[in-house]
Amino acid sequence: MAPQPTEDPRKAVRDPIHGLIPRYRQEIRLMNTSVFQRLRRIRQLAMAHLVYPGALHTRFDHSLGTMHVAARICERIEGFGKIDKDETRIVRLAALLHDIGHGPFSHVTEYLLERHYSRQALGDLGTRAKIHERLTAQLVGENPEITKVLTPQERQGVLALLTESTKRDFKRDIISSSLDADKMDYLLRDSYFAGVRYGSFDLEKIIDASRVHEEVGAESYLALDHEGIYAFEQLAMAKYHMAQQVYFHRIRAITDAMLVRGVNIAMRDGDAEVSSIFRYDGSSEFLERYLAYDDEKLLRRLAESEHCKVSDLFRRLSQRRLFKQICDVPLEPESVKNAIVRDRLARLEPETRWTRAVEEAIGEKLAIDPDFVVVTRRSVGNPTFRSASDRLDFEEILILDRDGTPRKASDFLDVSFAFNTTAQSRQSIQVYAPKDEWNDPEAETGQERNECQRAVQETIVQHVS
Amino acid sequence: MAPQPTEDPRKAVRDPIHGLIPRYRQEIRLMNTSVFQRLRRIRQLAMAHLVYPGALHTRFDHSLGTMHVAARICERIEGFGKIDKDETRIVRLAALLHDIGHGPFSHVTEYLLERHYSRQALGDLGTRAKIHERLTAQLVGENPEITKVLTPQERQGVLALLTESTKRDFKRDIISSSLDADKMDYLLRDSYFAGVRYGSFDLEKIIDASRVHEEVGAESYLALDHEGIYAFEQLAMAKYHMAQQVYFHRIRAITDAMLVRGVNIAMRDGDAEVSSIFRYDGSSEFLERYLAYDDEKLLRRLAESEHCKVSDLFRRLSQRRLFKQICDVPLEPESVKNAIVRDRLARLEPETRWTRAVEEAIGEKLAIDPDFVVVTRRSVGNPTFRSASDRLDFEEILILDRDGTPRKASDFLDVSFAFNTTAQSRQSIQVYAPKDEWNDPEAETGQERNECQRAVQETIVQHVS
Amino acid sequence: MAPQPTEDPRKAVRDPIHGLIPRYRQEIRLMNTSVFQRLRRIRQLAMAHLVYPGALHTRFDHSLGTMHVAARICERIEGFGKIDKDETRIVRLAALLHDIGHGPFSHVTEYLLERHYSRQALGDLGTRAKIHERLTAQLVGENPEITKVLTPQERQGVLALLTESTKRDFKRDIISSSLDADKMDYLLRDSYFAGVRYGSFDLEKIIDASRVHEEVGAESYLALDHEGIYAFEQLAMAKYHMAQQVYFHRIRAITDAMLVRGVNIAMRDGDAEVSSIFRYDGSSEFLERYLAYDDEKLLRRLAESEHCKVSDLFRRLSQRRLFKQICDVPLEPESVKNAIVRDRLARLEPETRWTRAVEEAIGEKLAIDPDFVVVTRRSVGNPTFRSASDRLDFEEILILDRDGTPRKASDFLDVSFAFNTTAQSRQSIQVYAPKDEWNDPEAETGQERNECQRAVQETIVQHVS
Amino acid sequence: MAPQPTEDPRKAVRDPIHGLIPRYRQEIRLMNTSVFQRLRRIRQLAMAHLVYPGALHTRFDHSLGTMHVAARICERIEGFGKIDKDETRIVRLAALLHDIGHGPFSHVTEYLLERHYSRQALGDLGTRAKIHERLTAQLVGENPEITKVLTPQERQGVLALLTESTKRDFKRDIISSSLDADKMDYLLRDSYFAGVRYGSFDLEKIIDASRVHEEVGAESYLALDHEGIYAFEQLAMAKYHMAQQVYFHRIRAITDAMLVRGVNIAMRDGDAEVSSIFRYDGSSEFLERYLAYDDEKLLRRLAESEHCKVSDLFRRLSQRRLFKQICDVPLEPESVKNAIVRDRLARLEPETRWTRAVEEAIGEKLAIDPDFVVVTRRSVGNPTFRSASDRLDFEEILILDRDGTPRKASDFLDVSFAFNTTAQSRQSIQVYAPKDEWNDPEAETGQERNECQRAVQETIVQHVS
Repeated sequence: MAPQPTEDPRKAVRDPIHGLIPRYRQEIRLMNTSVFQRLRRIRQLAMAHLVYPGALHTRFDHSLGTMHVAARICERIEGFGKIDKDETRIVRLAALLHDIGHGPFSHVTEYLLERHYSRQALGDLGTRAKIHERLTAQLVGENPEITKVLTPQERQGVLALLTESTKRDFKRDIISSSLDADKMDYLLRDSYFAGVRYGSFDLEKIIDASRVHEEVGAESYLALDHEGIYAFEQLAMAKYHMAQQVYFHRIRAITDAMLVRGVNIAMRDGDAEVSSIFRYDGSSEFLERYLAYDDEKLLRRLAESEHCKVSDLFRRLSQRRLFKQICDVPLEPESVKNAIVRDRLARLEPETRWTRAVEEAIGEKLAIDPDFVVVTRRSVGNPTFRSASDRLDFEEILILDRDGTPRKASDFLDVSFAFNTTAQSRQSIQVYAPKDEWNDPEAETGQERNECQRAVQETIVQHVS
Repeated sequence: MAPQPTEDPRKAVRDPIHGLIPRYRQEIRLMNTSVFQRLRRIRQLAMAHLVYPGALHTRFDHSLGTMHVAARICERIEGFGKIDKDETRIVRLAALLHDIGHGPFSHVTEYLLERHYSRQALGDLGTRAKIHERLTAQLVGENPEITKVLTPQERQGVLALLTESTKRDFKRDIISSSLDADKMDYLLRDSYFAGVRYGSFDLEKIIDASRVHEEVGAESYLALDHEGIYAFEQLAMAKYHMAQQVYFHRIRAITDAMLVRGVNIAMRDGDAEVSSIFRYDGSSEFLERYLAYDDEKLLRRLAESEHCKVSDLFRRLSQRRLFKQICDVPLEPESVKNAIVRDRLARLEPETRWTRAVEEAIGEKLAIDPDFVVVTRRSVGNPTFRSASDRLDFEEILILDRDGTPRKASDFLDVSFAFNTTAQSRQSIQVYAPKDEWNDPEAETGQERNECQRAVQETIVQHVS
Repeated sequence: MAPQPTEDPRKAVRDPIHGLIPRYRQEIRLMNTSVFQRLRRIRQLAMAHLVYPGALHTRFDHSLGTMHVAARICERIEGFGKIDKDETRIVRLAALLHDIGHGPFSHVTEYLLERHYSRQALGDLGTRAKIHERLTAQLVGENPEITKVLTPQERQGVLALLTESTKRDFKRDIISSSLDADKMDYLLRDSYFAGVRYGSFDLEKIIDASRVHEEVGAESYLALDHEGIYAFEQLAMAKYHMAQQVYFHRIRAITDAMLVRGVNIAMRDGDAEVSSIFRYDGSSEFLERYLAYDDEKLLRRLAESEHCKVSDLFRRLSQRRLFKQICDVPLEPESVKNAIVRDRLARLEPETRWTRAVEEAIGEKLAIDPDFVVVTRRSVGNPTFRSASDRLDFEEILILDRDGTPRKASDFLDVSFAFNTTAQSRQSIQVYAPKDEWNDPEAETGQERNECQRAVQETIVQHVS
Repeated sequence: MAPQPTEDPRKAVRDPIHGLIPRYRQEIRLMNTSVFQRLRRIRQLAMAHLVYPGALHTRFDHSLGTMHVAARICERIEGFGKIDKDETRIVRLAALLHDIGHGPFSHVTEYLLERHYSRQALGDLGTRAKIHERLTAQLVGENPEITKVLTPQERQGVLALLTESTKRDFKRDIISSSLDADKMDYLLRDSYFAGVRYGSFDLEKIIDASRVHEEVGAESYLALDHEGIYAFEQLAMAKYHMAQQVYFHRIRAITDAMLVRGVNIAMRDGDAEVSSIFRYDGSSEFLERYLAYDDEKLLRRLAESEHCKVSDLFRRLSQRRLFKQICDVPLEPESVKNAIVRDRLARLEPETRWTRAVEEAIGEKLAIDPDFVVVTRRSVGNPTFRSASDRLDFEEILILDRDGTPRKASDFLDVSFAFNTTAQSRQSIQVYAPKDEWNDPEAETGQERNECQRAVQETIVQHVS
């Protein structure tokens, strides 16, 4: 008998988180484009490997993983007749492409783009300009490598899921919501590569409990069956722990601040090439320049800058000679008695004129160039620098009761029993500056550190009083 | 050259949770006694395998694991010079023997012993008679197999760690406290064998953060370095999730209730042999009878009882034809408006005359023998039926600040930020009774269930009004 | 809008190996029968928990896991259009029921049934009587609990997959072959519960590589795509390592030998009740008696036997006072020079007259009752006491080449490169007997052991010379 | 009472493989040097992330892991009194520094250094020049950052363990031998990050079984207790599977070949800067240039080369437009009948004049620039391009018998029973060339591929005949 056809429409790739991930041909062709391959050079957690040496994973593997989780949710929902094969196909493509517009060091670039986009070309886009969403739309819509693989209808379908809308759609929820595939993948992935256990939760149970709730007017929500409530609580806890231990880790905040400061100095002092990467103007020329950059290339470009402050900052990053946190002032009555001062401190925005004045005062006090003093504000529970998909809102998650009635996660006694969902966010002010002499583990710097912290705190409070 | 001595003072046994567990010779001899081998026949989670088929692990492996965790904490503390090899040896032995007094179905026996001990022989020991602690002391002190292996000094040292005391000692904390080795082992072990992820936490970090805090008057506390605070939060969350998903699982509550009811009927109706197992009188004859029983033997003995109600109850357990929960009334204003009724319901103690009257009323309503109607009260956050080591009290855990100042876990903003440590416990009343017709997944019983629930709730409320 | 139907046709159970295992209603009803619940009391690895304390898992969870693996293979094959939903349903049922006929201590009972079946009632069934297969067929065909759940067609379909046939069918291969779901589940499960890593292999890859190869005459084979060859090698290695470290562990061989010897003495000396469990005669009365027994019940029944040798043997088992291996003679020229003697030793069958004579000679030499001397023969690579599904035959596994041509696993250079597939099995003779004085780890018995070993080996060799 | 000292001499870092890895102050200072930080930019598996997206881990984390495994072996051996704290300290340092001399793409650089070192400056160092070992010695001995942290005695002690010697020393075995910490770490680490299960083995058991065997003349060996034999077999199997699936993966072979070819073209055609990195002459200037390069920097430097062939090759690598394997000829009688031809093919060395001639013939046949045709020879079992520590030699591993007698692993029947330790290595010839048209998964190229393979094979055979 003749050999038999065993052709497989999908080809699996090995992933440490999800095992074998099957991919269809169109998806493989998308992944082979140079715009997608570029995601291999944008790390998921920027410079977090300076704390967790294993955290070198990239947007490339995360995009693949997000597609896989999204597909598994769709397959579960297919069993209830709420989605068909063709819709699933579009959800997969959207999940695969959801990070395609990311630039070097992801959220750092996102911040820089919002700050520096060309108001001349685009007008003032308000406080939440969402340059990143515009970039993604432009890329999916215009990039010749992508348009060769996706039909106009497919591109339209993908973009409908990747951009915000007033009408709720469970398929968009799968891509971006409090319960999205993006978050499920990155919690597990970041946790695995960093080697911490904090990000672990019961993915199988959440997928098993996934449902669609339909409302009048063709609105629909991704919801969870009530049996999934504990798995959801676990996910919430994983999110919280990862934020505390990884996403808001001190060293990570310092490296982000150094990256931002370095680029800002370069742009302020006339580095045209660097400016051309972060000054979005909607042109296709911009896109080309932007896509040519990745983490390592930006790092090297600036480490080789002729501007010696800029090159110093970036060489420090690559040799791990980081700024130190020289001050940390919680905006609580115990730390700062005067409520007006506390209020003023809470309004210190990074890289504004007012903040610059504080940095100059500190620089004078410590005899450090104010360009190397960074004052930032940290707000746990209300994270800056991070995209919408990072929220995990108990008010937003729909839980279906035994009889199918939709309720909010926060309605469930069990949730409020364990969690403080009403807790306000806590704010604090940090100051970073070079203090290489603190590097040496042999040196006894405890006392010196305390004195420095005291002096800087006094300077700040005096300045804003 | 002659063969060389490679003798190893320890012999390792393979454990799924901790890998290879080294044991010293004296420990091996203890484990070879028939009183210790008996722990192989007392399952850690009673009948939880009816829900989680893998949960068949026993007090035997848990005791070994507890010894291992306790030893690792001691080794960490040795590095700070707070404990020596000989003290570590005693802590190991105490951890190994901490469950040696457990009877069939552990906490069920514990409850039955407290209820039925001989007031004639021992006097009234008050509301918390701690029969179990007495039993352990008697066993370690008198059992000939054990006294052959341990010297009087060793036995005294072990018992000092296994019994309560007014003077705080970090070595006792390792065995029994909010942060004990017992809890760390059982959370990981129960989670592993049940196949749920809820019990996972960062054991390595907690061991690494273990410290001793010494107070005047030679008191000492097991404490955590402040760097361990997140691992501790994770442990707290693991505890909470395991309670919700495993320890207080409905099926588990039902099997416990059936076990207790069965033994109580047998004793009430004159089964002398069964009475002789649970009526502790401090004699060595009692100990001998008690030690002859284990889970399976008790189950079979009662399944073969001549008392047909008793045998029916225990055959049901072995064939998994369980009672159903026919009613669940949260003691909240939404469920029971009348506050006085709510208050009375909250005072329903299991197996009292008043509760019996309620059971009779329900039995009459449903035409079920009242011996087969069980009314229980569940109180989450204040678990009955479980030993002291199950508490995990944020007020009790000591966290050492950067400069060594002891603080409470609840002082740490982060903890209160995530957890509702102030939340009151929630109470509810459950009713269980045989309803085999609900077994069939094909039968449509949703409506019938609801009606039954309503009827029973009304009966209860009327009865106590 | 009204609450929406979210009914789920399947209900998942939690399994430590495979996560959530979905079950359909009919399957749940089958699992609720008392014949199936009985599998909860038959441990997968008999007394292996005496070596690996965690190894307490049962035929119950293994049956569920086998169904799940079989279902996943079917789902993969559905993608190639080789099986439909209805056939998959039958494969699932067959996998779920494949161990339904197992008796106490599984393979021990299997051996005893083959030895003691009623030749009067059934005639002589030859060297491979396959009583176990007959029992399964009788059970599935006649048991009223099962016939209530399965239609005659379903029972016929299931039995066709559970009994041997000359015509090759890939669906039967899934249930029982060198590459069956049974083996894939038990390797992973035994490894998990024992806590060893030896049984781990890449299940995902094997499922992904599963294919059907069809031959003329409607024969079909379960095959692997050539990309699965390394995962298969890994499976083979897992099988080999589990055999060495767990299945043929010395302590396990001793407990099996003690179990068999105890039952044989009881039957020899007229224990009618015990005889009635192991003397299969095809009657439904036999089936009822047989189904009433499980591991623990057999153990207790014999520990309470009036025959003091029998009760001694079984009390030893429950208190872990085991026989020791007092001699181990590899049947190799280095150990036994005389080839004729070697040949005769290789023909010593357990529990035969000739073997008995050897046991008597040893008993006399060591002053031990010959009933307590067990001489067995071990043959690695050709395991006795184990069912057909345990084989993993490189000649039997079909690997599909890049173009779909079927080849044997042994054809692949890589396989033969790593493995000695041509190696002959190795045989040895073991002698077990009570030697409690060797228990004490303090006693220096090395020399005594060596002398005993030498004396017994001489006795054996003299006896057969 | 005053706060209490809880100072910890070690500071732990989080590692995904080993959990918390404690480091002493001197080690932290070493890790803070820029020569060590540079290892963060040299990936452990070169371009393997093109196949296994997670495989981005570096020599930095591997060095840390190797120190940890080495330390754990030392601690085990301390229990037998064979090593003291100070010797352990030196073993830790040596393990931490064992890869300090690695260049961009590790083994690729190693090969290039051996090929291009300055014979003018150093003379002809023979077939195994071990430039890498010279480099390491020079670095540890002379680098100012390192000499600031290590005393001359410490450096001498470290180098004694990092360089070969005729006198066997178990401490050197821990660093580099068939059973070294290096291999144990990389198998687990590569397996974890690639997401394959092939590299898993029982590290705990191997550490537990570690022993020292001492010989006359103060020679000593790292040995295993006989109980570790199965864990060792598992390690051997892990090594074999990782080689098959990861280390010798086709894509990996192609990227290595492209890297080597690119550098060779650049050097051949006069790129002085590139030449200066790979032409080792023992000078400190060389060292400075060498240390300035890492994976990414070399990749970019060559992608931006003015030599268009070179830049094409390196742009292909970063965009994953790889050469294809257009021919694979096993040197077996079935593929190449003529034994003389086979013999000649087996002598084709990469990048020699003779090989170049074959490449030109193929280039002409396929109309491809011969600079873009790569002919290589692969020899499984006798790996080229890889360092000494990669061997895992059954003849070299010492196993201690029950009475301490040293034996070889290959003596153990069990080992030879499972493995073909006598199997010869298998050789084959591969040809790689650009064939971008085969990239598209839609295109049907099966037939075209077969024809191309045939044509190239004929060309090769004709050429050498």
